[in-house]
Amino acid sequence: MSRHLRAFWPLLFVFSLLPVQALDEAPLDGYSTQNSKSERSWERQFRALPEPDKLRAYMQRLSARPHHVGSAYDQDNAQWILAQFKSWGLEARIESFDILFPTPKKRVLEMIEPSRFVAKLQEPALAVDPTSSQQSEQLPTYNAYSVDGDVTAPLVYVNYGLPEDYEKLERLGISVKGAIVIARYYHSWRGIKPKVAAEHGAIGCIIYSEPREDGYFEDDVFPKGPMRPPDGVQRGSVMDFPSSFPGDPRNFDRGDPNAPRFTAQNAPSISKIPVLPISYGDAQPLLAALGGPMAPERWRGSLAIPYHVGPGPAKVHLVVESNWDVKNVNDVIATIPGTGEADEWIVRGNHHDGWVNGAMDPISGQISLLEEARALGELLKQGWKPKRTIIYCAWDGEEPMLLGSTAWAEAHEKELVQHAAVYINTDSNDRGRLDLEGSHSLEHFLNGVMRDIEDPESKLSVWQRNHLTGIRHAKDDDERKELRSRADQRIGALGSGTDYTAFVDHLGIASVNAGYGGEDPEGIYHSIYDDFYWYTHFGDRDFVYGRALAQTIGTAVMRMADADVLPYQFSNLADTVHVYLKELQDLLKKKQNEIKERNTEIDEEVFRAVYDPRHPTVAPPKEEVPPFLNFAPMANAADALAQAAERYDKALSAARKDGQFAATDAQLHELNLKLIESERKLTDPAGLPRRPWYKHVLTAPGVYTGYEPKTVPGVREAIEQKHWAEADEQIEQVAKVLQGEVELIDSAAKELASWAAAP
Amino acid sequence: MSRHLRAFWPLLFVFSLLPVQALDEAPLDGYSTQNSKSERSWERQFRALPEPDKLRAYMQRLSARPHHVGSAYDQDNAQWILAQFKSWGLEARIESFDILFPTPKKRVLEMIEPSRFVAKLQEPALAVDPTSSQQSEQLPTYNAYSVDGDVTAPLVYVNYGLPEDYEKLERLGISVKGAIVIARYYHSWRGIKPKVAAEHGAIGCIIYSEPREDGYFEDDVFPKGPMRPPDGVQRGSVMDFPSSFPGDPRNFDRGDPNAPRFTAQNAPSISKIPVLPISYGDAQPLLAALGGPMAPERWRGSLAIPYHVGPGPAKVHLVVESNWDVKNVNDVIATIPGTGEADEWIVRGNHHDGWVNGAMDPISGQISLLEEARALGELLKQGWKPKRTIIYCAWDGEEPMLLGSTAWAEAHEKELVQHAAVYINTDSNDRGRLDLEGSHSLEHFLNGVMRDIEDPESKLSVWQRNHLTGIRHAKDDDERKELRSRADQRIGALGSGTDYTAFVDHLGIASVNAGYGGEDPEGIYHSIYDDFYWYTHFGDRDFVYGRALAQTIGTAVMRMADADVLPYQFSNLADTVHVYLKELQDLLKKKQNEIKERNTEIDEEVFRAVYDPRHPTVAPPKEEVPPFLNFAPMANAADALAQAAERYDKALSAARKDGQFAATDAQLHELNLKLIESERKLTDPAGLPRRPWYKHVLTAPGVYTGYEPKTVPGVREAIEQKHWAEADEQIEQVAKVLQGEVELIDSAAKELASWAAAP
Repeated sequence: MSRHLRAFWPLLFVFSLLPVQALDEAPLDGYSTQNSKSERSWERQFRALPEPDKLRAYMQRLSARPHHVGSAYDQDNAQWILAQFKSWGLEARIESFDILFPTPKKRVLEMIEPSRFVAKLQEPALAVDPTSSQQSEQLPTYNAYSVDGDVTAPLVYVNYGLPEDYEKLERLGISVKGAIVIARYYHSWRGIKPKVAAEHGAIGCIIYSEPREDGYFEDDVFPKGPMRPPDGVQRGSVMDFPSSFPGDPRNFDRGDPNAPRFTAQNAPSISKIPVLPISYGDAQPLLAALGGPMAPERWRGSLAIPYHVGPGPAKVHLVVESNWDVKNVNDVIATIPGTGEADEWIVRGNHHDGWVNGAMDPISGQISLLEEARALGELLKQGWKPKRTIIYCAWDGEEPMLLGSTAWAEAHEKELVQHAAVYINTDSNDRGRLDLEGSHSLEHFLNGVMRDIEDPESKLSVWQRNHLTGIRHAKDDDERKELRSRADQRIGALGSGTDYTAFVDHLGIASVNAGYGGEDPEGIYHSIYDDFYWYTHFGDRDFVYGRALAQTIGTAVMRMADADVLPYQFSNLADTVHVYLKELQDLLKKKQNEIKERNTEIDEEVFRAVYDPRHPTVAPPKEEVPPFLNFAPMANAADALAQAAERYDKALSAARKDGQFAATDAQLHELNLKLIESERKLTDPAGLPRRPWYKHVLTAPGVYTGYEPKTVPGVREAIEQKHWAEADEQIEQVAKVLQGEVELIDSAAKELASWAAAP
Repeated sequence: MSRHLRAFWPLLFVFSLLPVQALDEAPLDGYSTQNSKSERSWERQFRALPEPDKLRAYMQRLSARPHHVGSAYDQDNAQWILAQFKSWGLEARIESFDILFPTPKKRVLEMIEPSRFVAKLQEPALAVDPTSSQQSEQLPTYNAYSVDGDVTAPLVYVNYGLPEDYEKLERLGISVKGAIVIARYYHSWRGIKPKVAAEHGAIGCIIYSEPREDGYFEDDVFPKGPMRPPDGVQRGSVMDFPSSFPGDPRNFDRGDPNAPRFTAQNAPSISKIPVLPISYGDAQPLLAALGGPMAPERWRGSLAIPYHVGPGPAKVHLVVESNWDVKNVNDVIATIPGTGEADEWIVRGNHHDGWVNGAMDPISGQISLLEEARALGELLKQGWKPKRTIIYCAWDGEEPMLLGSTAWAEAHEKELVQHAAVYINTDSNDRGRLDLEGSHSLEHFLNGVMRDIEDPESKLSVWQRNHLTGIRHAKDDDERKELRSRADQRIGALGSGTDYTAFVDHLGIASVNAGYGGEDPEGIYHSIYDDFYWYTHFGDRDFVYGRALAQTIGTAVMRMADADVLPYQFSNLADTVHVYLKELQDLLKKKQNEIKERNTEIDEEVFRAVYDPRHPTVAPPKEEVPPFLNFAPMANAADALAQAAERYDKALSAARKDGQFAATDAQLHELNLKLIESERKLTDPAGLPRRPWYKHVLTAPGVYTGYEPKTVPGVREAIEQKHWAEADEQIEQVAKVLQGEVELIDSAAKELASWAAAP
């Protein structure tokens, strides 16, 4: 469910230059010269196997009927995927979990003042689009894990419903206390909107798809074009997982039998106020009926109305009631046993459940996973023997909030912590450039993979296309300069919104998330129109990017599986930690300057000067200037990390003599088992403040952003939320964790040095 | 006609800090202590006189019926104004000029493919608004000085119709050759749109009012709110005056009997292709019928449609035909003879003609002019004896393009060049802060006036309100720092769009343009709804800013009229020239860097990497990197100017002993006559390249911006248009002109020194 949102994130990817083709046949990192040659040969064979026609056929089959959690076709798909895995010669099984999953019982939205209007809450079938008429099987439009409620109140428009939007409302003298808010989708994950609304005293929340972002402003609407039609609605979960945990809301940590248990009545991840998503067709009469001040300019969308904020005169009645049932969630797990280092696992996943027919989300990614599995099955028949164990996972229940992957990761926590070298995730996929997020110890490795994949459109390498696109969209000379001088392209930090979450955030397994996209506007996210008709008209209709994704991820899986030494690299990690440190320092400085400046302006009577009696505003209060924080422990740790990474690189290079690692298989194995620990070492067993399920100290979904990552979240969110003492504590905590990473890397480097020392 | 547009210009005003009240009773610049005391007393008396009720009554009378050039009520207004001037005891007369002024004969706009639609081209009367129904007297919606034409062609949407918009179209592979373009109003003056369209081969031009800037996006529409209703149209002149000259298109320069004469058939200022303005009600079906690529994101407006650029399938038929008649233009001129230095003139003007009822534009400014005249008449009766001659001008024919003021300025060219010390202009006026543009030798003087006027809303001084508002809206710390440290607020450069144009650009008379505004959204510019009803509901309905304007400008007029030494000050002028020099250097550097970077990207194959086959684009061509230019002559001249200004300031200070100027009246008079020359010295008799009517070297309306000023236009436009040799020549030319200014200032300083040397 993550891709769509990503288009609205700030550009997370930054790329860089360099001579590539020459390196093409240089030995792969972590491989002996001979093994590298053989690996390259197997990979080339692999990349010739994925077929667009097969991808198309899988999509047609998997998206033929609605397949949300608990639906007949969702179970049918699981069985079909299982059969496919088996037919390709893989060991496969279904692992099932019973999880609380609410479905709509009653949904009412009506305006009762100043005139009456009843919202349709229904997406119409379209004659040209055959699956859009499967109404009896479709989940109605709703936000899963909204609390039940029946509320009536004046309406207030709150823009995206971000904390800063409520600050703007305060400047306009508007309170949402006792009101129902209407927020537009995007710029924060949807579950943040009711959360922040409730924190400000609202009693209900409506989320609508605004045509500015998700309708005719972007392109022609479906079925003429790819964008959301007037009655299209974005379903989606509002489970407050960033503040608590994803997966089944009923129990805290399924790996821990002593963790507290919750019910649908008291689970912390269920929204505090009722929430309902609506179309812009339904939103227009409500927004048009608002009075009060004009909304700030950037709040105004593309409806042909003046956007006022209210409150009222529009008064609305909102009812949300769910069937709080437990549903069976079916993960399909296929295994390719390793032949040398079988106790090191390469885990690869993509969910198979959708909100409705879900052709784009998630089937466009699932079909690539299936083609990878088929191709790997083919290679096995041809004699390929992966060193490590490869596990392919078709997750169920991702849409409600990572139900299947979280349950599985927690059920297998002990084994995973011991064995998992990497988790590689995909979700929706489309035409364009490769979006890559991941653990930074994998950054260098992933750059190598990108250099070996051909972009279907430009025929440049994916690395080169991303690199040049990055240059084109760079915001300034400094950014272009870095792009042109840094050997590896940067990859983004992992946030959330798809199935890597439990792996990286909770278990500390080095993870990757990947997908092509960025060229096709799409306005069918989580609607009945995300289907085979849409995808084959407006998406990757030739399935060449589906093939590219299979080639990309399959290559990464094989290269991780077969390496003599697991190709983690820590100097890019250290560089990234330095970037984060600088960002944190800049963030604090910026906050200090902003508050100082505003306090000065308050003293100067600036707010008296700009006061317009016909458009009244409330001057902000004076605020204490944020104190300086002690960043030294983190700076020291970051420097130590950079030095350790350099020592490791040197030791690794020295350990490779005449194209061979001067080590026994046992020594290699011992080293690899140590290296697997490297991401685990980036976690803090205590977890983040107020959300102990999240244990990674370098990245987490933001408590007030949702899917968008917060890097060094303990420190960054403490600064953002003005918890100064906590910020100082968290800096020390992060430094301590990084120091553990330094020790691990040094110990690995020492191990390498001991080989070199051996006769 | 200028104010409305100004709201869309980049922030031209930059202000600054300082202790004020303490200076309040310090002697006025250019005054002896005794004369300063007396002046302050007369000014205070003056400022007590303007009355909101009178302002309201004037507006009701002057806007009661349509009063465009040549209309019965326009002539009636002129007679009425004349009678008012006389009734207040002023010498007054009407000066008439016969000028070519086209009015609509035939206007057709219809879509003939893919479906038929006939544009209404008609603003409906509204029951609540009594004057909106005076249809028989209203000028139909049209663009004056459009060439006659009857064209049929596919339609292309060109955004604002700026040169850079056509570059974007080229990148999309779209040509407008043989097409009719539809452009939206704003971001360049309207006459630029058909000019640039014709340069690119278009055969017709439609300009529409886009609701994003001029409709419901901004606020509720009239009569519920202040914004343009769906059928509201912006009339206006499209005379290409920036490239040629304003005023009667038939002859080149009315002060020069040998200048070439033109006819309506060959006049260079008449548009090259037919142009018609339309409402967004009429535009919507045309824009909705466009196909082709989506318009670039920033081109899309607030209509509830996907904005495509075309060309076609929409095909339109456009007919524009005018009655090319000569009309009588009536300027009303009132004179208050000076008593000491009567051959030095203070000229003050505001136009009285409107496009229809014109309550805001121009009556809101005209009424303040009238109240000033009444109050000055009152002071005369009480014994006030202005040193200099004061001339109050109520201009006719401003809307078609400065007809009355240009004709008068040219008819009186010789006297004005000899006598005029300053021209002070106003036009529309509304609530908010004071917008000030002017000659920079008057910047310090105007700062002094602003300190003495109370802002009606904040009760701060106008200076302080502007200063603090500037801080609030500053774009960065550097700007705030300058605002807080510079003694005087900066004033903007004069562009065009109102009656100061001939005075400053053609004759080199130090000029000022002023008006309050910025708080009230207004969408009635040049429509039948700009009337008394609108203004008294959505404008300065209490007329307190009308009073503030009269107080501001009347104070400026009196203070200029009574000074012992005319209060020009040249160090702010020198500072401004330094700013311009830096801007020009930065502009060149920016162009060099942009082109270098783009050439690099072309070499790197960036445009191959970003190419999306479903959204095809054309890579830009490689371009030669702009050469370095020799800015040294201008830098030297600017430094010399700064030094001369400092010498003058010192000499002036030394010449004032014990609060008295140690000079005879004759010596003062001689100095003043020299100082009057100071703005004339900033002109080049040869004029600007390709537009010799424009003689000022520091400012002119932009050839591709219209009303928006281009500072150091000879150099700046040469750089923008890539005329490198011309840019180098113009730098030398500007330096030479500035050197002339240096000599004049030095000669004035010497004169001052000679007083000091006298026994």
